[in-house]
Amino acid sequence: MSASDTIRIHLPDDRNYEIRIGTGLMDQAHSWQGLPKAGAAVIVTNVTVAPLYAQRLREQLSAIYPRVDVVTLPDGEQHKDWASLNRICDHLLGEALDRKTVLFALGGGVIGDMTGFAAAIYMRGVSFVQVPTTLLAQVDSSVGGKTAINHPLGKNMIGAFYQPVRVIADLDTLDSLPDRELSAGLAEVIKYGPIADAGFLTWIEDNLDALRARDKRALAHAVRRSCEIKAQVVGQDEREQGLRAILNFGHTIGHAIEAGLGYGAWLHGEAVGCGMVLAADLSHRLGLMPSQFVDRLRTVIERAGLPVQPPRLGGERYLQLMRVDKKADAGAIRFVLIEELGRAGLHAVPDARIVETLAAYGAA
Amino acid sequence: MSASDTIRIHLPDDRNYEIRIGTGLMDQAHSWQGLPKAGAAVIVTNVTVAPLYAQRLREQLSAIYPRVDVVTLPDGEQHKDWASLNRICDHLLGEALDRKTVLFALGGGVIGDMTGFAAAIYMRGVSFVQVPTTLLAQVDSSVGGKTAINHPLGKNMIGAFYQPVRVIADLDTLDSLPDRELSAGLAEVIKYGPIADAGFLTWIEDNLDALRARDKRALAHAVRRSCEIKAQVVGQDEREQGLRAILNFGHTIGHAIEAGLGYGAWLHGEAVGCGMVLAADLSHRLGLMPSQFVDRLRTVIERAGLPVQPPRLGGERYLQLMRVDKKADAGAIRFVLIEELGRAGLHAVPDARIVETLAAYGAA
Repeated sequence: MSASDTIRIHLPDDRNYEIRIGTGLMDQAHSWQGLPKAGAAVIVTNVTVAPLYAQRLREQLSAIYPRVDVVTLPDGEQHKDWASLNRICDHLLGEALDRKTVLFALGGGVIGDMTGFAAAIYMRGVSFVQVPTTLLAQVDSSVGGKTAINHPLGKNMIGAFYQPVRVIADLDTLDSLPDRELSAGLAEVIKYGPIADAGFLTWIEDNLDALRARDKRALAHAVRRSCEIKAQVVGQDEREQGLRAILNFGHTIGHAIEAGLGYGAWLHGEAVGCGMVLAADLSHRLGLMPSQFVDRLRTVIERAGLPVQPPRLGGERYLQLMRVDKKADAGAIRFVLIEELGRAGLHAVPDARIVETLAAYGAA
Repeated sequence: MSASDTIRIHLPDDRNYEIRIGTGLMDQAHSWQGLPKAGAAVIVTNVTVAPLYAQRLREQLSAIYPRVDVVTLPDGEQHKDWASLNRICDHLLGEALDRKTVLFALGGGVIGDMTGFAAAIYMRGVSFVQVPTTLLAQVDSSVGGKTAINHPLGKNMIGAFYQPVRVIADLDTLDSLPDRELSAGLAEVIKYGPIADAGFLTWIEDNLDALRARDKRALAHAVRRSCEIKAQVVGQDEREQGLRAILNFGHTIGHAIEAGLGYGAWLHGEAVGCGMVLAADLSHRLGLMPSQFVDRLRTVIERAGLPVQPPRLGGERYLQLMRVDKKADAGAIRFVLIEELGRAGLHAVPDARIVETLAAYGAA
């Protein structure tokens, strides 16, 4: 069975690309046709995903590229670092692969971010294709061109804006996803409701059980609508000068949780889910939203199987972690807050307010 | 005394910038006005340049930025690596400097390439200003937005296309340049004649003694004309899809010499100068140019104080080193060859011809 939707992403300088969303895409020749010609394709994946899909993808690509290599990295956010990035570069250079080589990011957001960054900097830029196998990567990493690695002092601090030439989001790959990671992906899906589409938040609430049961029609709609919203936002602000920042709803506290506990302790989506609850609380505390909104968001995040209780790192530590986050200009820490359902904006929030929210959730 | 010329570089997406070329620029407030506002400026320089200019630049920038840091790296091509790049990133993150921070590359090509690459990837891109203090950097690194570090397996293999917001080429800084480095810079100046402007080659021949005596008027013309030609070429091909490759005249063999001897043994300009002699010989051997051209180019390169005798690495080793170079697509190695005085093109050259040329110069 195979069914698919296509979203076209429009970018300047001939960098348009397609996101194909559907079932059965991995094993379909059509998915891989029309990509840039090259002497070699390199699949970058991790030890968890490789046994499931690397061979299948390799077979498809072997029909097109004379040579198909597989580079398998360790799994997990804690390996989204220079050492892993270097393994990709070492392979490419060790095999003397030229600047026409096409990279395929087969895995979740970590693989997508690292492969994209490797593509951005190898010989100052080679083509890459995103083949996201997690819900988070399908809704988040497929659009926007953000690539990066972590630095011991901060998440995603070293990276580039770099666009893929195609995204193949095969919903069947979500069948192999652990429940915890499915929930983490739902955090980013939920995010698109409050920041951009009140109706989509209602749809998510109505379809949350189907999504958690991996109903393909529900997943297809969730992925498509998330990508559409993200594409719309990013299309107006590719390099994150302003509007695009709203996509970071929940991320300021989320990143602090991830960095504070050590990368990998909480999944990115878990940290963002919890960060959204606290950002909703801040939105209420600053008089932008009624308390019912905080309750509503917390409920849907809990129903998605996500933690809503932030770790108790202490107020000072949270502030310190958020200050190094790149959304912090000099001065007050800025948060994406909800201004009305479906609309968000950046707000500088006094430290005292932040600590109040953290205290209210037992985290200060 | 102060006199200056300005070249305006036009790029898409509001990335236009100015190259200011002249004397007395470093200590002029005007040089530093109108740059992006930020809470901090970071001067990246090396142990050789820092004692000469870092304090002077810092004083100027302190009038504009609340905070001015200096990061001092080791000197030399052999330090154009991830470790040095990481020292820049470590400083930026360790001091929690935000994405508005402006980097200033104060030094030669190595500092410019590394600082530019750090600016490209720190928080996915911050602004940077080139303050080139070598002739090579003033004529070569100021235009084109190529940034990179070396990899043990190849030169400039990891990098990005990333443009500065301004270039301040103060000719007075060339007074402190060792003769050997001045000659290395002249190699890139000479390059622009055969590839793009026959008249400029004649002008260089007529003014070579003045250039080597560091006559400011001669240097100003050489830097300006080199930047103009490079800007014209790059303007038509920012990402090196085709035309821009002609700027690599002399670089294919040059890079092989640098990599084969170990980075830092020969200066980049020395390797390029010698590489141009061999590429001229190849142009003749393939029937494109008369033998007089080879003699003429060798003579001017020798008069510039540059080596014209390539190191004896052996033909096989040369071929191997050139094959990994990123200008080599799968198959025959491609060289920039001179087609007529002032015009160059990419040519796939059979291995046998390359070895003939190397043998003729005692290098095979």
